[in-house]
Amino acid sequence: MRAPTGVIPRRALRSGDPAAIAQLVAATGFFTSEEAAIARELAEAVVAHGPASGYEFLLADGPGGLAGYACFGRIPGTEASFDLYWIVVAPHLQGQGVGRWLMALTEAAIGELGGTRLYVDTSSRPQYAPTRRFYAACGYVVAAELPDFYRPGDGKVIFLKALEQR
Amino acid sequence: MRAPTGVIPRRALRSGDPAAIAQLVAATGFFTSEEAAIARELAEAVVAHGPASGYEFLLADGPGGLAGYACFGRIPGTEASFDLYWIVVAPHLQGQGVGRWLMALTEAAIGELGGTRLYVDTSSRPQYAPTRRFYAACGYVVAAELPDFYRPGDGKVIFLKALEQR
Repeated sequence: MRAPTGVIPRRALRSGDPAAIAQLVAATGFFTSEEAAIARELAEAVVAHGPASGYEFLLADGPGGLAGYACFGRIPGTEASFDLYWIVVAPHLQGQGVGRWLMALTEAAIGELGGTRLYVDTSSRPQYAPTRRFYAACGYVVAAELPDFYRPGDGKVIFLKALEQR
Repeated sequence: MRAPTGVIPRRALRSGDPAAIAQLVAATGFFTSEEAAIARELAEAVVAHGPASGYEFLLADGPGGLAGYACFGRIPGTEASFDLYWIVVAPHLQGQGVGRWLMALTEAAIGELGGTRLYVDTSSRPQYAPTRRFYAACGYVVAAELPDFYRPGDGKVIFLKALEQR
């Protein structure tokens, strides 16, 4: 997949990234403050502890700063199953294929780490319909649904993609 | 539910508990060394950071040391859903209702914390059939199954119990 113009991927986190990630997550207007705090904490854990934190990042630098990022990691206790914890694209860059490109790079990075299955959790709420359509368009299928998981009326939908063996 | 003779519950972890927990988990012969290490790390996190760690413990002291324990916590991002991460009974005390009693106390403790749904993950492997029967006997239902989650042929079974509102 061709890279979006002027957007460059990198895997290594820098010390300023946790703040930039928190800002990006907040800028989408899509996440709760608890979620934004978690996003920042995961990045801080990687800056402090590296891969031992259990989290991996793939960042996309754009001309005006962080264009998007993905955060993922092997699920503890599994041989080769990964969770995609976050995939976020800056609001002004959405709808230009940055998400698809970031997802493809993330899947490739997970393949390099030996991952064979990638799970993504999302909400069943109407607000998340575009998110669910995005995952479906990326080749993910619904593996399970847990009604009322997040709160009454807000279920968890677990998407799965079996990654191609390389 | 009546307490098993000579077994006393407590919620607060002591500094010696992480080692006792690791020993208990290993003594069951049921868990991998990675799982035993995780069990110990969770206890260490609570000793170091208290409830801010996101984990809660319920321990059962028997005449000869730790008789069993449960580890649980609110699932981040959820309003009132909890995960039961661990429930373990010492091998020489199994089959005497300690597990059922520990589960009932755990559900009550989660209710006190405001939890309304308790999820428990386990394996689909034949080795875990007694575990699955135990959850079913405690009133848990299978909410989802994820084949090959842990490794090929080893799926995840997600049990759920909606806790009674108090």
